[in-house]
Amino acid sequence: MKFVLEKKDVSARAGIIHTDNGFITTPAFMPVGTQGTVKAIAQRTVQEIGAEIILSNTYHLYLRPGTDLLYQAGGLHKFMSWHKPILTDSGGYQVFSLSDLRKIEEEGVRFKSHLDGSVHNFTPEKVIEIQRIIGSDIMMVLDECAPYPCTLDYATKSNSLSMRWAERCLNNFNSTEKLYSHSQAIFGIVQGSVFPEIRKQSALTLKEMNFDGYGIGGLAVGEPAEIMYDMIEVTNQILPENKPRYLMGVGTPENILEAIDRGVDMFDCVLPTRNGRNAQLFTRNGTLNITNLKFKNDFTPVDSACECYTCKNFTRSYIRHLFNVKEVLGLELATIHNLYYYQWLVHNARTSIMDGNFTEWKKKQLLQLNGIDEQM
Amino acid sequence: MKFVLEKKDVSARAGIIHTDNGFITTPAFMPVGTQGTVKAIAQRTVQEIGAEIILSNTYHLYLRPGTDLLYQAGGLHKFMSWHKPILTDSGGYQVFSLSDLRKIEEEGVRFKSHLDGSVHNFTPEKVIEIQRIIGSDIMMVLDECAPYPCTLDYATKSNSLSMRWAERCLNNFNSTEKLYSHSQAIFGIVQGSVFPEIRKQSALTLKEMNFDGYGIGGLAVGEPAEIMYDMIEVTNQILPENKPRYLMGVGTPENILEAIDRGVDMFDCVLPTRNGRNAQLFTRNGTLNITNLKFKNDFTPVDSACECYTCKNFTRSYIRHLFNVKEVLGLELATIHNLYYYQWLVHNARTSIMDGNFTEWKKKQLLQLNGIDEQM
Repeated sequence: MKFVLEKKDVSARAGIIHTDNGFITTPAFMPVGTQGTVKAIAQRTVQEIGAEIILSNTYHLYLRPGTDLLYQAGGLHKFMSWHKPILTDSGGYQVFSLSDLRKIEEEGVRFKSHLDGSVHNFTPEKVIEIQRIIGSDIMMVLDECAPYPCTLDYATKSNSLSMRWAERCLNNFNSTEKLYSHSQAIFGIVQGSVFPEIRKQSALTLKEMNFDGYGIGGLAVGEPAEIMYDMIEVTNQILPENKPRYLMGVGTPENILEAIDRGVDMFDCVLPTRNGRNAQLFTRNGTLNITNLKFKNDFTPVDSACECYTCKNFTRSYIRHLFNVKEVLGLELATIHNLYYYQWLVHNARTSIMDGNFTEWKKKQLLQLNGIDEQM
Repeated sequence: MKFVLEKKDVSARAGIIHTDNGFITTPAFMPVGTQGTVKAIAQRTVQEIGAEIILSNTYHLYLRPGTDLLYQAGGLHKFMSWHKPILTDSGGYQVFSLSDLRKIEEEGVRFKSHLDGSVHNFTPEKVIEIQRIIGSDIMMVLDECAPYPCTLDYATKSNSLSMRWAERCLNNFNSTEKLYSHSQAIFGIVQGSVFPEIRKQSALTLKEMNFDGYGIGGLAVGEPAEIMYDMIEVTNQILPENKPRYLMGVGTPENILEAIDRGVDMFDCVLPTRNGRNAQLFTRNGTLNITNLKFKNDFTPVDSACECYTCKNFTRSYIRHLFNVKEVLGLELATIHNLYYYQWLVHNARTSIMDGNFTEWKKKQLLQLNGIDEQM
């Protein structure tokens, strides 16, 4: 993996990540494909909407279909027939958020599957082994995502553990080989909750380990957005310029614009897909709930400025009907539109950075996003 | 609407139906789009799999989104963004199979909505009015689909009522105008249960009324397949050569081949879509249930001779995984494959008829379909 920083506009960055499975222009948004599929749309559609990389979840893939099957299939790319880059998380976050029982020790984390209650262990070494089998282009280290709020003491100890785990992940990564024809990269993950000093320390520690890129984790877990933005700033002041920075699990269009402004390069979030399946559609003018009665006779597109398949072919009235009668096509059309909008957002952020007018462009987007009442 | 009979091969027929929204080559299979969407796939995908016409259900559209909305949208084609031909049933069949209460009288049928229990009336005139608003290219008359088994007396009286309703539908059709720019055609429906003499009488009566085409209704409702085939033969001996014949709601690949052999031109059935969503996949070698454990490590396509998006890109193992973890993409991929297979079946039937070797081709297909145990 190679990252080329092409342009800086104040702190906002435009770059390209090169992988053996293709390049990713940044800022990039990664659609979430938890179980080896971006929910409700086919792989060709993910490609059509402009995604250059998807994220998949180690925890879910480990449980189903399992590593044996993934290995037999020749890795996740072949299994799911997605031939562009894939990033996988380490599974840690799902262990902490989904599994019934978990016990964190120095060695790793023991947890019960949310599916059948079976007991499993994730260690730093094991999550690398699993990600070797998955064959993701970018792997993430095992970390503990500290809950919000937590004490300074908890955050300090938790971050220290995450740093030791990061080093063990890196050691395992460096002493093992790729299983398939393409290379794999590994990102460390900055923790430290909402404490600037721990964030700085975390970023410094990982920087010294020299990862291929850096995740910014433990944010968007309940803290105010302003604090999240501050933590991003603090972190990015330490992280090296020549490596990509990935803000994990974030967020709303506004969050993404603010984070790009502070030097973040990569994002993933379930909002466009999950909220889409719950009838919430994102537009340049804010969100709308398509099941609302006011859209019953609305024969205009979801977003008349949008070029996606949904907006070029279908009306709000029709999509509302699909949700109303619980037709699967509603999920597909909403997902297509929302992901297309998110891709539009990061692609246009990139263009404005390259043109040197990101600040202005961002301001305009934020005004439009918040002007929903006047414009809808 | 204009039907051109291009070729006969013994009794099997190849033809073309011309409508203002495009032509339909026959034998034709119509994917079912009950609520203004072919379940689980987008309109462009319906077109891609080769469908030249879809069927939609008057009963469902009448209840949701309702005729007011459909009229405001400019008809169903515009509402759902499907620009090829649409055939609608009359709603009668759903009234008899779905609604809670129904009362059949000379005037029409009174029923309670299966959704909210509200009471509605369908008369021959009303179902034509509804189909005018839907704007289907081919409308069907209101009829009573007699239950199986039923007495000769019941079948006689029921068919007589259906014939009087057919005439009222035709009168209403002839005295009303299309609401949109394209023309509409109307088909009568032959009834008569499993009684040859009533079937003949029904076909004769409708033939004299001179419809644009003829549905063969009241079959595949529980009677043995051989009896269904006999009824088709009896009916097609009476129906005029120069009009299309549509066997309603049928059926399995074998049913379709046998009906084509007896001179049927058009089909619709929920089998490929509904069974697909329940993990049953149709292949040249018979059906398979993709959730079966034996497909867990099967990295071959559903049908290696198939050219559909599903078979060209995904393995049985992956599709099984999708069903196993309840991912929407499983529904889409199964639907694409099954509908593609059904289109393949009728398109190849057509080719073999044009080539004058339908009998031989059909025999080969039936052997293959029944050889599943040896070949899978």
